[in-house]
Amino acid sequence: MKCRKCGERALISLRRHNAGFCKEHFNEFFVRQVEKAIKKYEMFDYSDKIMVCISGGKDSLVLWYLLHKMGFDTTGMYVNLGIGEYSEKSLEKVKAFSEKHGLKSIIVNLTQLGHPITLMEKRVKRTACAICGTTKRHYFNKVAHENNFDIVATGHNLDDEAARLLGNTMRWYPEYLGKMSPALSADSQIKKKVKPLIRLTELEVGAYAFMNGIYYIADECPKSVGATSMIYKNALNTLETEMPGTKHYFYSEFVKNVAHKFEREETEKKEMHICSICGIESFLEVCTFCKMLEKIK
Amino acid sequence: MKCRKCGERALISLRRHNAGFCKEHFNEFFVRQVEKAIKKYEMFDYSDKIMVCISGGKDSLVLWYLLHKMGFDTTGMYVNLGIGEYSEKSLEKVKAFSEKHGLKSIIVNLTQLGHPITLMEKRVKRTACAICGTTKRHYFNKVAHENNFDIVATGHNLDDEAARLLGNTMRWYPEYLGKMSPALSADSQIKKKVKPLIRLTELEVGAYAFMNGIYYIADECPKSVGATSMIYKNALNTLETEMPGTKHYFYSEFVKNVAHKFEREETEKKEMHICSICGIESFLEVCTFCKMLEKIK
Repeated sequence: MKCRKCGERALISLRRHNAGFCKEHFNEFFVRQVEKAIKKYEMFDYSDKIMVCISGGKDSLVLWYLLHKMGFDTTGMYVNLGIGEYSEKSLEKVKAFSEKHGLKSIIVNLTQLGHPITLMEKRVKRTACAICGTTKRHYFNKVAHENNFDIVATGHNLDDEAARLLGNTMRWYPEYLGKMSPALSADSQIKKKVKPLIRLTELEVGAYAFMNGIYYIADECPKSVGATSMIYKNALNTLETEMPGTKHYFYSEFVKNVAHKFEREETEKKEMHICSICGIESFLEVCTFCKMLEKIK
Repeated sequence: MKCRKCGERALISLRRHNAGFCKEHFNEFFVRQVEKAIKKYEMFDYSDKIMVCISGGKDSLVLWYLLHKMGFDTTGMYVNLGIGEYSEKSLEKVKAFSEKHGLKSIIVNLTQLGHPITLMEKRVKRTACAICGTTKRHYFNKVAHENNFDIVATGHNLDDEAARLLGNTMRWYPEYLGKMSPALSADSQIKKKVKPLIRLTELEVGAYAFMNGIYYIADECPKSVGATSMIYKNALNTLETEMPGTKHYFYSEFVKNVAHKFEREETEKKEMHICSICGIESFLEVCTFCKMLEKIK
């Protein structure tokens, strides 16, 4: 296969775009997809102070690398989850990456804070993934608020979000379906959240990392084995193989023409509280994260 | 595994209901599911004249068998599609079945009418499945109208409808998503259409046919090889294996709480016409079926 742009030998073939690209033009394609997402969903501009949530995996490091390269004001934010060797390895990747590129970052260490995920999952009756999600969300909000960031950017890609949409669709959860946009506007205490890799697949992000020497932790989190998100990703991959372009259409058409049907009317919205412990906005008087922490004490 | 009701050896195990049943109690379960569907969706009652659309496959014959057994006024309606040996075999099954049970039926023969599917697919630029769907729909409406039936019943099961919903969801077609109910009310010229097997899976219908000596054509239509509906069925089966009950929840929750979001407002509805050739209601001045027939002439 040849590169669609220059006719040289293609390094990657993208069936959903019916195109092959050499390294140079794949990079060009990749950056254009990120630019399109930022522009289309009005994510941020050069005046914004962006906090990039980093896990040490390919998606978040590629996102950080690119936003920095594009000239945006970025700071990495990494939560060390305290999941044994996996967390140590991912921390090493994050440190090596930020040193190599001279990037500043903020590190939150759950073990030092006294509640690594491995301890929390023993005390709290929820899956490790649910506990981890709530905990990361808490620190994303807290750090972004305390450091006056304008934007919280995460590395979620098209596979992540299409799988989440499929899961929410299988259950038709209106609260979740109303929050599928790749740019969620800020609330009084919650910063605007954006997903600039939304137009790119897992495979494309991996290829970009590989071609550009971005060294990430390739291991999946040991706690995520058997996670339902993997089941939905597999189902979508089956459909994508038979009908290339399905994932992107399914997600983008939903966001464009359907999501608004699930957004709550202002009058229907649940009353928001300020968590009486951590002071962050929540549906509850004491937020889920603080309730979990109480069980650790 | 033992029967949930009587403790005897179970003949069938239904994971989504976390139950096993002997023959007697599976039959009881099966009939109850059909009764529930008829009642819940207010499909019809004993005063209605019901036309049951028959293909010779398990679903339609089981439906006919059951509705007759339950005492409803039924007539079978079979369209011989003119697809070689497949159509001949299915006609034999239909004849044998109606003779055995002393049931009356109406037969439409596309070959005698001069337009078997095999000829139409040579002249019309659409897939055989699309041509067949339009053609059957035309004759269902025509025969139901001419014979004053109140109800048109089809044997679609949960797998069929959940797969159709998944396909429509992948594309977010509002026109189709607004018509997913298992009981579509009558229009001026179109009779009410119902799907009483909606609470039962393909496997359950097959087991019922087997246990009750209903001999159906087991071959899939040779034209349906590679049909996209099969791709969606496979994807749903993968999800169902991991999360039993997914198919039923996905479909029934949509119909209950979501479908109305896709129904067009009266004011938005497209103007309906009476097809100037066949006289049946259509969105177009000449309906799609009559347009296809013009290409055969």
